[in-house]
Amino acid sequence: MQNARSKIKALTFDVFGTVVDWYSSIVAEGEKLGDTHGIDIDWAQFALKWRAGYGPAMDKVRRGELPWQNIDALHRLILERLLDEFKIVGLSEADKDHLNRGWHRLKPWPDAVSGLKRLRKRYIVATLSNGNIALLTNMAKFAGLPWDCILSAELTRHYKPDPEVYETAAALLGLSPNEVMMVAAHPGDLRASQAVGFQTALVPRPLEYGPSSVREVNAHPSDLVATDFNALANALERNEK
Amino acid sequence: MQNARSKIKALTFDVFGTVVDWYSSIVAEGEKLGDTHGIDIDWAQFALKWRAGYGPAMDKVRRGELPWQNIDALHRLILERLLDEFKIVGLSEADKDHLNRGWHRLKPWPDAVSGLKRLRKRYIVATLSNGNIALLTNMAKFAGLPWDCILSAELTRHYKPDPEVYETAAALLGLSPNEVMMVAAHPGDLRASQAVGFQTALVPRPLEYGPSSVREVNAHPSDLVATDFNALANALERNEK
Repeated sequence: MQNARSKIKALTFDVFGTVVDWYSSIVAEGEKLGDTHGIDIDWAQFALKWRAGYGPAMDKVRRGELPWQNIDALHRLILERLLDEFKIVGLSEADKDHLNRGWHRLKPWPDAVSGLKRLRKRYIVATLSNGNIALLTNMAKFAGLPWDCILSAELTRHYKPDPEVYETAAALLGLSPNEVMMVAAHPGDLRASQAVGFQTALVPRPLEYGPSSVREVNAHPSDLVATDFNALANALERNEK
Repeated sequence: MQNARSKIKALTFDVFGTVVDWYSSIVAEGEKLGDTHGIDIDWAQFALKWRAGYGPAMDKVRRGELPWQNIDALHRLILERLLDEFKIVGLSEADKDHLNRGWHRLKPWPDAVSGLKRLRKRYIVATLSNGNIALLTNMAKFAGLPWDCILSAELTRHYKPDPEVYETAAALLGLSPNEVMMVAAHPGDLRASQAVGFQTALVPRPLEYGPSSVREVNAHPSDLVATDFNALANALERNEK
């Protein structure tokens, strides 16, 4: 791998969970809304269910049961269902839109900004998320994420882990797949990128689903494994020497 | 316009000529290559002809006479013709590729980086160029251009001034066309963006084609006109007050 890693020109990052902590951010958004509107529910459950709706919603698009729509639209579909389920009434359209756009205001993991700044000196750093371009652009401004380029599944009208997403990203960057390393907290994302020729780095985020549901993930033998983005920068710098 | 301008959320920028000085950059790339390889030609003429081939090449793609290809590929097509015309022989594939990628290493106008940094505090700043994503991303890293988002005609497989390019950019940013201001040195680009509802700012770059062919352009009455990007930031800040 030593040799393969020296070819890397760009790092593409999964975003939800890998770069930003959606769980605590969405819980905080919910609690803020709850305080303002006197809504007393379990916002941790709300956040987890919102996120749990995301995979099945994308699958419906993937199978053609829903017409193409971006993640903002899918988040809103799921939100409407959750508002019913949690018996939340009386929110204005502006309130709902603001809550839905909470996904544009996710907070980075503590190492994310400093790690990306280091990695960016040596590599192109780009998103490669199922989040739509507007969401990722607004989030980058909100969170100070120093991307060189915002790439999204939206550009292909597919969702990860469909191969088109990874193939198109490499082509748009003008690179061969093996010049790109996918960085993600989720083995499925890494496997799918690897299937089209990407190199892979696993950055486990055990707190992705909150402190009461710590998850472990298993790396593939070919993955570089790093505990956070600064450790990833260290590992890649060692490789260069 | 006062009221319309207060709606602006994003500025999209033409790049070649508006943000970067392709003329002097390409002349310098040519001269450097000429010094190394003992090629004594008029690199200013070479640069102007290379650029002059660009519009007709895009038109061929637009009319379906050439299959879709990005600007890197079109630049290379034109380059091969120019190498014949200027009787330049003996360049390796690596030399030609390096010269062709000179378009990834264009230098910004002196006000561009500082102006963009100011504008970026208030607005999303994005490219909206016929240049491909890889070219624009590499150029941003080379030149220190602080884009929030790299948007390109490449994403639509159309070229400006086709309306699809502007419409898609607004949609990807999650904005209505009238929330976006197109910034360009070229009235044709502004008119086409205005036709789909964009607001427009003309930043004339009289030296775009070099000091011996200063060009004047005429603004449309609805255009904001600014002499450079800092003047544009001043004008938009005044509007906010």
